[in-house]
Amino acid sequence: MSAFDDLLAFQRQTEALSSVAERLGWDQETVMPRGATEQRAEEMAAMEAVLHERRTDPRIGEWLAAARPEGEAETRVVALIARSHARSSRVPARLAAELARTTSLAQGIWAEARANDAPEDFLPTLDQVLMLKREEAAALADGGDPYDALLEDYEPDTTAAEIARLFEVMRPRLVSLREAVLGAERQPPQLQGHFPQETQLRLSRACASAFGYDWSRGRIDLAVHPFSSGRWQDSRITTRVVESEPFNCIYSTIHEVGHSSYELGIDPDYAFTPLGRGVSMGAHESQSRIYENQLGRSRAFTDWLFHRMGDAFDGLNIRSADDFYATVNRVTPGFIRTEADEVQYNLHVMLRFDLERDLIAGRLDVRDLVKAWNARFLRDFGVAVDRPANGILQDVHWPVGMFGYFPTYALGNVFAGCLDRAMRQDVPDLDEALRRGDATPGVEWLRENVQRHGGLKPAGRLIADATGAPVSPDALLEYLDAKFAEIYRL
Amino acid sequence: MSAFDDLLAFQRQTEALSSVAERLGWDQETVMPRGATEQRAEEMAAMEAVLHERRTDPRIGEWLAAARPEGEAETRVVALIARSHARSSRVPARLAAELARTTSLAQGIWAEARANDAPEDFLPTLDQVLMLKREEAAALADGGDPYDALLEDYEPDTTAAEIARLFEVMRPRLVSLREAVLGAERQPPQLQGHFPQETQLRLSRACASAFGYDWSRGRIDLAVHPFSSGRWQDSRITTRVVESEPFNCIYSTIHEVGHSSYELGIDPDYAFTPLGRGVSMGAHESQSRIYENQLGRSRAFTDWLFHRMGDAFDGLNIRSADDFYATVNRVTPGFIRTEADEVQYNLHVMLRFDLERDLIAGRLDVRDLVKAWNARFLRDFGVAVDRPANGILQDVHWPVGMFGYFPTYALGNVFAGCLDRAMRQDVPDLDEALRRGDATPGVEWLRENVQRHGGLKPAGRLIADATGAPVSPDALLEYLDAKFAEIYRL
Repeated sequence: MSAFDDLLAFQRQTEALSSVAERLGWDQETVMPRGATEQRAEEMAAMEAVLHERRTDPRIGEWLAAARPEGEAETRVVALIARSHARSSRVPARLAAELARTTSLAQGIWAEARANDAPEDFLPTLDQVLMLKREEAAALADGGDPYDALLEDYEPDTTAAEIARLFEVMRPRLVSLREAVLGAERQPPQLQGHFPQETQLRLSRACASAFGYDWSRGRIDLAVHPFSSGRWQDSRITTRVVESEPFNCIYSTIHEVGHSSYELGIDPDYAFTPLGRGVSMGAHESQSRIYENQLGRSRAFTDWLFHRMGDAFDGLNIRSADDFYATVNRVTPGFIRTEADEVQYNLHVMLRFDLERDLIAGRLDVRDLVKAWNARFLRDFGVAVDRPANGILQDVHWPVGMFGYFPTYALGNVFAGCLDRAMRQDVPDLDEALRRGDATPGVEWLRENVQRHGGLKPAGRLIADATGAPVSPDALLEYLDAKFAEIYRL
Repeated sequence: MSAFDDLLAFQRQTEALSSVAERLGWDQETVMPRGATEQRAEEMAAMEAVLHERRTDPRIGEWLAAARPEGEAETRVVALIARSHARSSRVPARLAAELARTTSLAQGIWAEARANDAPEDFLPTLDQVLMLKREEAAALADGGDPYDALLEDYEPDTTAAEIARLFEVMRPRLVSLREAVLGAERQPPQLQGHFPQETQLRLSRACASAFGYDWSRGRIDLAVHPFSSGRWQDSRITTRVVESEPFNCIYSTIHEVGHSSYELGIDPDYAFTPLGRGVSMGAHESQSRIYENQLGRSRAFTDWLFHRMGDAFDGLNIRSADDFYATVNRVTPGFIRTEADEVQYNLHVMLRFDLERDLIAGRLDVRDLVKAWNARFLRDFGVAVDRPANGILQDVHWPVGMFGYFPTYALGNVFAGCLDRAMRQDVPDLDEALRRGDATPGVEWLRENVQRHGGLKPAGRLIADATGAPVSPDALLEYLDAKFAEIYRL
């Protein structure tokens, strides 16, 4: 056995254990008896302790030093393990444990504060989380930029400065599109009615099948929040149902099918290695968003959906497939990121990105955060936040310590824009298939050009190789301009 | 931190990890996508490797040597960890891995041989398993009796000799009861009809509730084989449905509720310690069997069930509650242990116990096993085995290396007999409650006298303390004589 083989064998077991921990998380959100929360916390903590011990195992350093990888894949495997080992080793075990404990408690405190619309109950805890995260960021950065060090966990191979430049290009274009759309004479009708849970779930399963979801390696369950979980031979998704809003369930499902299909589409040879997972959260979001938006909210696919929904619910209050397309893509003022349309979504992200960089840099104090959020929201969206649950309290990310995560959502949209342009060039009969409720020609193009590579290439190169052009926000912005100009007759 | 505290903290994590591994097994049998089998095998192997490393960790030996436990519970904890550590350490890692690999493969080969009714396809594999188990038994026995060393895994604190003496008392009494019942003039009617799955499941859930199953810490799912899984705050059961045989689903459910309730009934202070689980398989089976038989198949409970089933299925072909009681307890000739009635069940166990002792001792060659099984079956049951799937191929235990497991089933019945006698003395209004579909007075007696103690006392002492008398088969035999004399008017 060479050092590389030893390293790989050790990593294989670590990957398997990490997959087990993720499965426990799925279990907790879907089928676990409600009385088992303390036990599950103990089980998760035990798994995390084992995983941390393995990730910081000193033998990894020895194997890395002695490994002689051959070819692109082996070289990348070594680089990815080295990065994870270095990161895990930089954070003192005391800090890691303190972070795990504090963020776990903070999540509950945040949920209660949100329910009570009482940010003052939660801000002291957020302050604690932030202090620990700043300490972690400094340890990880090792002299470099602390925010970039946190970003690396979700979107390696990029920097906050690069993302800021991207957002500077996007913001004015999105703001002006938003104004034009909201001021347009034509405003799409709103879907109304009662849409029973069982029918929504049946339709969602049909949509998952339309996008080629592999049922032999996946399943759909109900959960409070939609998410996807797992990889290789077992990637499951969840969805949720609001009986007055069927698009919520349908498009959440398609979104999560995008995430799961990315994992299931990775070259099986990469399973149980660091190549066997989506390369970054931005790359991941590119798949979920292109499934959901560029494919799922297209004129062609909504044509099929319009007729399916009409059949399933015995008629809709929307008259034509054209109107239905407009309804699905309706832009309305709103406070909540997760409910935002394609035009406004990235503006929500940018607000968070700027505030969290200020928090990590120490330029913004948690005590001033509500004021800062509200002022910024008014400036970007033209409306005042009506209550904290619709403002600062809406997202779980900061309470659980996920600073550096938000920009990956917008990056995913940018990647999706690039991929959509190339895919439409390469797959001329895409709309014809979508109109029949078959998204698989698009899905196959994505699997071949993006998904199968797993962690082999950094996200930027992955998208550039797939599209034949460097990453740029132009494709997304042009797509949005054209789409919404058509819908709103701008 | 004292050595005892260190030992306990380490054990706590091991117990949590072991609970995770068990949850994975549940997932595999109930909700896992069918295409995930290879991945799951890899995940289970990784968990087993971690657990084996922990169980044989040399620090355990040091902590054990230095530990100064105080009181009954701490002393017992130390003894149980010492036993597990000694056992794990005696088996060479090479042999443990070989056993895991061989038995995992053997299970598939056995399933196929059973489906094809072809023992010759499977016996060479069984021979391999047996060789490895004999090697393991010799390593574990450390000069003592090899069969007893295997038995210890399932029923510590007893020996094959003790069990054999018990069986010698039971066999003639059971054989003569069996002859009397099968030769009786009155033969109970058979339940006939079509019993839809959904209604069976609804009834089974009602039965689980009647036995006080704690739904906040459990759930019921469908699986190929009924089983219970997990402990402390999370013990789930499975059941199965045959639409022509509703008793199968109903009594499997009650049986598994017995197993799960044992685990859920243990003193919560024992969670994540070796005291936090059923003390032996015999003790476990005593709970599942007393729930299923002495309570669930009683005249009083079947009265309630008769009316519930009549309502649920719009009438039955059984006229009276008396007839229904007889139907539920019907004794018929049969080849299959898991389908056996209360009279014949233990005879099935005794056959396997004698044969497996001969196999482990090297007195019986696998090549002669089919002949030995068939001869013994003819002698004990008076009918010739018609085909191997109804004989040697019916049980999964030997292929997966579970030698020493079978006698615990009969031991559980003996324990249940002892407990039933004491419970009926202590809970005079038991039948009155059962007739209302409420088994909880019995369940509460069992929780107080058996379940809450977890692993605190060896099984024999547990039953003796609960009943005020040493373990003896008399109570079971007298219960069976009286019950079946009444039903068959002997």
